[in-house]
Amino acid sequence: MVKNVLRSTYVVCLVCSTSILLNLLLIINNYVAAQWTLSLSRGWSSRAAAEAEAVAEISCSGHGIASLDGFFGDGNEPVCECNTCYKGPDCSNFIPHCTANADCGDPLFLEPFWMQHSTSSALVVSGWNRMSYTYNDNTFFSQQLERLIHKLHAFVGNAITRNRYIVFGAGSTQVLSAAAYALSLQNTSSQSPTRVVASIPYYTLHKDQMEYFNSEKFKFEGDPYTWKNRSDGTADVIEFVTTPNNPDGRLSGAILDGPNVKTIYDRAYYWPHFTPIPAPADEDLMVFTLSKLTGHAGTRFGWAVIKDETVFNRMVTHMKMNSLGVSKDAQFRAFKLLKALLEEGTGIFDFAYRTMKRRWERLAATISSSNRLSLQKINPQYCSFYNEVREFSPAYAWLKCESEEDKDCYEVLKAANIIGRRGNVFGSEDYYVRLSLI
Amino acid sequence: MVKNVLRSTYVVCLVCSTSILLNLLLIINNYVAAQWTLSLSRGWSSRAAAEAEAVAEISCSGHGIASLDGFFGDGNEPVCECNTCYKGPDCSNFIPHCTANADCGDPLFLEPFWMQHSTSSALVVSGWNRMSYTYNDNTFFSQQLERLIHKLHAFVGNAITRNRYIVFGAGSTQVLSAAAYALSLQNTSSQSPTRVVASIPYYTLHKDQMEYFNSEKFKFEGDPYTWKNRSDGTADVIEFVTTPNNPDGRLSGAILDGPNVKTIYDRAYYWPHFTPIPAPADEDLMVFTLSKLTGHAGTRFGWAVIKDETVFNRMVTHMKMNSLGVSKDAQFRAFKLLKALLEEGTGIFDFAYRTMKRRWERLAATISSSNRLSLQKINPQYCSFYNEVREFSPAYAWLKCESEEDKDCYEVLKAANIIGRRGNVFGSEDYYVRLSLI
Repeated sequence: MVKNVLRSTYVVCLVCSTSILLNLLLIINNYVAAQWTLSLSRGWSSRAAAEAEAVAEISCSGHGIASLDGFFGDGNEPVCECNTCYKGPDCSNFIPHCTANADCGDPLFLEPFWMQHSTSSALVVSGWNRMSYTYNDNTFFSQQLERLIHKLHAFVGNAITRNRYIVFGAGSTQVLSAAAYALSLQNTSSQSPTRVVASIPYYTLHKDQMEYFNSEKFKFEGDPYTWKNRSDGTADVIEFVTTPNNPDGRLSGAILDGPNVKTIYDRAYYWPHFTPIPAPADEDLMVFTLSKLTGHAGTRFGWAVIKDETVFNRMVTHMKMNSLGVSKDAQFRAFKLLKALLEEGTGIFDFAYRTMKRRWERLAATISSSNRLSLQKINPQYCSFYNEVREFSPAYAWLKCESEEDKDCYEVLKAANIIGRRGNVFGSEDYYVRLSLI
Repeated sequence: MVKNVLRSTYVVCLVCSTSILLNLLLIINNYVAAQWTLSLSRGWSSRAAAEAEAVAEISCSGHGIASLDGFFGDGNEPVCECNTCYKGPDCSNFIPHCTANADCGDPLFLEPFWMQHSTSSALVVSGWNRMSYTYNDNTFFSQQLERLIHKLHAFVGNAITRNRYIVFGAGSTQVLSAAAYALSLQNTSSQSPTRVVASIPYYTLHKDQMEYFNSEKFKFEGDPYTWKNRSDGTADVIEFVTTPNNPDGRLSGAILDGPNVKTIYDRAYYWPHFTPIPAPADEDLMVFTLSKLTGHAGTRFGWAVIKDETVFNRMVTHMKMNSLGVSKDAQFRAFKLLKALLEEGTGIFDFAYRTMKRRWERLAATISSSNRLSLQKINPQYCSFYNEVREFSPAYAWLKCESEEDKDCYEVLKAANIIGRRGNVFGSEDYYVRLSLI
């Protein structure tokens, strides 16, 4: 009897629990898939469009730009933000004795191209656009943008991407460290941290990031030549190869190889406006960035093309741990810009090559008349994109002061009001200075 | 005589060098401050605006959204991307026996608010907008956005930001790890890695990030109670305090104090729609995120409010090393959304509180009739924003299975087609499950 009572209580309890769980399911389903009536006001984008067009019409004499998220005047209207060396309400006043800053790799040389293609590159974003952490397929990365990237590489012929994985990051900056983390996790053959190396002169970020993150898994160990043909050939190594190289623009290759060597190819500058494209690159891990392709450094969008699925998955994990993926706004902007770029065919490359070549030739002509200064020399090569032998038109001049007394070349230039970037920043001697041409 | 010849050669050489440097200066100044004629086509934003408005008009029955960077049909027109549990061309078909997914903290409950405020939140971006790495003041962070953030906190009264530094990151995710790096560099009193702790139940990212980055400078060491009143009081400690807490919504405080203890306050949920605001927070380092304020998780935008200049500078360095700052597109979106939010006064908080409270009350009413399940209880408090005593309306239900046999509460719910997040993910027991209400 007692047993029966207990059993029936249990049955009633199960029933009531089940109905509670059912109610819970209903409540959650009700708000997860909540329905609302879309009552959009007509022409909801008109006000924003009018504001954006009005601010674009503000004349800053070609020496500045006014922006909606920039500075505002007393009357609460946007005002010009002038480029270095210019001032005044419309940026028309040149500042005398202004220092020429060629330090930074800010790719503003493409600004005029996008002004000329204002219609195809304009972006309108609704307030409710892409609010979720993920896209509809539960990933952090836009499939449509990935498709465009495949199409872009196929069009330019600078990388094999068929049957490759693609991961996005906040500029190549985030992608490069993700790659180092992923590959150092793969290297499990020894207990010691993976050696990370890069040939001198190297892009200083490779060193700075490895030292900054200070992981137990990797250590920056300088130039790969130090480790070539060494007896401790079982040590795990990651070699960064920037090609074309930053700072000197050379199409360099890896120094080290072997079963314990992994290579990260930084291909930021492997576009037809900086270098001939001899053939599509097909390395295990290649990194690209919007910054040096379309000039949108501020958008912070880069990507890696990866052969190995495990490495890909680890890089996705890195992006998750670091920033829960990449800004959907940055991805949407990149999508719109690449779509516009592809609509224009070779347009952007023609424009960018003309600009870079003109700058390089003027600089080279000036330096050639000097025996105090010299520039890197790179022989022309066949470019498959333009189907002809072409000169290099590098993003940076790798300037050398030739005289013994000019061993601090940076100071020599600075005295002449020119700011470059010191050779030692690239692991090199201070006879060298990098001057940005972009 | 020979001496004189040498001297004159040297003088000539100097003169020629000087003219080369002058030419160099001219060349660089010429392209750095290049002038171009702005020849914008009129109405350059019309096409993009028409496309955006057309895609917004596509009806997905309130159970999905079509996007310009989303999926396209055979006729190359955007199609609906349906929410979980719905399918069909207009997402009108409910999928029978669909599992209710309450795992993720995706704040989609604010989507309808932004649809209702489509005009003020619309964003139009020109192709040449913010291409540079930096803003005009050479920083990675928009001054105008920073101003809005000060204004926002002053309006809500949830944080003191006057005379504080503000740093931006890709969501609170990136800001939190930046804070841990910055504070662990500050702790130099001992050689051992800084202990990182968080009270159980804790937001799992605090543990996961510390373990993932694997820095020599810090180690995740679990619950702060383990280290309270311990004799080794000189060890460096960082305590993460999430308040209101994720998962249980409590307004918790720090457990540890002392000269070697630094505290990072994760204040993601300290907004009037989730919790009463007893007083403005005024901690040394507080972290906020757009995601839980406006619902734009996908934008990846968070910020820290910091008292100490050195900590601020280190966090800026972190953002530089990690991703060269924060996407300008994400910052522009955040700017536009916060501007729209402030234009609406208490609108967003009223809307969000109503929604959250309704969900919480229905859930609480259902659970209260059960003795198999229970919910966290938090007493009402005075809210300075609404100037009244208010109930909590937490972002998550911290559900407990009360019976011994339900020790795997996640599985109990899963059997009823409800997906939550396991208690052990938060360092807790598996009698607990977190259900998202947002």
